[in-house]
Amino acid sequence: MNNKMPFKRSCCPITNSLDILGDKWTLLVIRDLVLGKKRYQEFMASSERIASNILADRLKQLEASRLVTRRAYQQKPARYEYVLTEKGEGLKPVLRALVVWGQKHFPSTKVIPTI
Amino acid sequence: MNNKMPFKRSCCPITNSLDILGDKWTLLVIRDLVLGKKRYQEFMASSERIASNILADRLKQLEASRLVTRRAYQQKPARYEYVLTEKGEGLKPVLRALVVWGQKHFPSTKVIPTI
Repeated sequence: MNNKMPFKRSCCPITNSLDILGDKWTLLVIRDLVLGKKRYQEFMASSERIASNILADRLKQLEASRLVTRRAYQQKPARYEYVLTEKGEGLKPVLRALVVWGQKHFPSTKVIPTI
Repeated sequence: MNNKMPFKRSCCPITNSLDILGDKWTLLVIRDLVLGKKRYQEFMASSERIASNILADRLKQLEASRLVTRRAYQQKPARYEYVLTEKGEGLKPVLRALVVWGQKHFPSTKVIPTI
């Protein structure tokens, strides 16, 4: 989002963040990127079983919002790798806070030490 | 969610958190509760203009997930006030992390000092 554009819903920083992140999938793709996943099939292999069309859509949105960049690692057919930008890396504290809250209230969930 | 129930999507604490919080509205209602709002019309008055049916649904979900409790402050017609539980209050670090990230990347957003 261009910062000079009018705000979509409000001038609240939480709202503007949720306009990008507020769904059940986007932060999971970012989690996978933080954990070192880069390729389409790696994201597809995560236990949440994201649908291919949702993954493609979220990766496009993440790129449009400058949270990830992609680079081709193969031609014919073209295949891409995705990497978090500094803006995307900046979401680690959000993920960490969700991990802390989730582990407290869903005690059987696993520990994610690297986030 | 009963912790003895099988996990819906995965055993990741982020995923389980997003099963409750992963949409564009739930964390905004929690933000309003943190800021001291309690009543239906107060939530409706926020600048994001939440639709009445979405607000009613999210408050029900928040109560079912034990993030808020409600109490009647008026009879005939019954009117309710909503208050965060300790579990709901525990989401403040998530909101704070979203505020920090949002203020950095949407510089014109306002400061929310009380979260």
